[in-house]
Amino acid sequence: MSIDSPPVPDPTAPQRLTRKGAATRGRIVAAAAGLMLEHGVAGTSTDDVRAAAGVSASQIYHYFADKNALVRAVIAYQTQAVLDAQQPLLGRLDSLEALRAWRDHVVGIQREVHCQGGCPIGSLASELAESDEVARADLADGFGRWEAAIRAGLHAMRDRGDLRADADPDRLALALLAALQGGLLLTQVRRETTPLEAALDAMLAHLAGLTVRPGG
Amino acid sequence: MSIDSPPVPDPTAPQRLTRKGAATRGRIVAAAAGLMLEHGVAGTSTDDVRAAAGVSASQIYHYFADKNALVRAVIAYQTQAVLDAQQPLLGRLDSLEALRAWRDHVVGIQREVHCQGGCPIGSLASELAESDEVARADLADGFGRWEAAIRAGLHAMRDRGDLRADADPDRLALALLAALQGGLLLTQVRRETTPLEAALDAMLAHLAGLTVRPGG
Repeated sequence: MSIDSPPVPDPTAPQRLTRKGAATRGRIVAAAAGLMLEHGVAGTSTDDVRAAAGVSASQIYHYFADKNALVRAVIAYQTQAVLDAQQPLLGRLDSLEALRAWRDHVVGIQREVHCQGGCPIGSLASELAESDEVARADLADGFGRWEAAIRAGLHAMRDRGDLRADADPDRLALALLAALQGGLLLTQVRRETTPLEAALDAMLAHLAGLTVRPGG
Repeated sequence: MSIDSPPVPDPTAPQRLTRKGAATRGRIVAAAAGLMLEHGVAGTSTDDVRAAAGVSASQIYHYFADKNALVRAVIAYQTQAVLDAQQPLLGRLDSLEALRAWRDHVVGIQREVHCQGGCPIGSLASELAESDEVARADLADGFGRWEAAIRAGLHAMRDRGDLRADADPDRLALALLAALQGGLLLTQVRRETTPLEAALDAMLAHLAGLTVRPGG
């Protein structure tokens, strides 16, 4: 699946919302996403969401059967937000130059937010993986979309002959996403971008070593 | 600080516990650690801990002023448990062979637990970094001890001339820890060890490329 694919349909979204209904639903999800990023899912009650979104409890339950349904909508929302924030770079990671520009962009985002918040998908994954099997599967899909975008770029490099034939783009994409996730977590904990930079730079140096040099 | 240093003293531990007192306190911390790993810190009440440890509420408050104090004790406990589980390998990561054995050991642990639970330090970090500044600092120290152990091995490799003089052991150790953390998170979410293996293998291949080969 490429990053250019349409977003995965949100299974919790009711069909045929009015424009006003869609706006209200969107406000609830955005408010819930912000609260859950700061306080965690367990630390966010539907009453907190109600207050932050400026809606009534009955409005929340009109759009979401229960808190689990709201959590699924937040996962879909954060996945899209994280991938969108890396565009258009993430959509074309098919050269070392492009990969380095993406690295700088991702590090720059962390600088802008003063290394706070970590990765919204990673935070949700860490909190929900053991307690909510449906959320875990959704989060695996979200990471899968991210990984697919990186993979598409590396496959293009290999198809073009820039990456050595014995390099494994699938495994390298997974390693790169893992380095990014771990780098984001350590950057969040240490409040400085060095871990993210060190992790991505090491992976990109490894990739550079797998490229076919002119005359090499 | 090396992995061989004595554990960081737990600032929440009351002085001069009787043997029975230390055992009771240890039972409370172990019960809290287990519950918090499964349900998160926010999803674990002191009442849950009381029930799981088989103690009274007054016993908990005898050893811990409040839930924050208990959380700090859990961080110290999990840090020690995570580092201990990687010994003696983690204490001597001073060759590619040793690094590869450690990689296999870490992957093996995840296989044994069926890829459940992720990294206890990483999970606590992800949940607490934005809400508890004292916990964040404790967790940064915990990661620091882990990183220091990896760094000591890489420095030994460079001092011995096995690692190229232009390689940066500090930055490589940080990158390796980040790859490990991200690999553990994706392994937890996907319930398979491939992400952890891909991340560590890429980092170790990168390191291998920085070693001085005989005759090279």
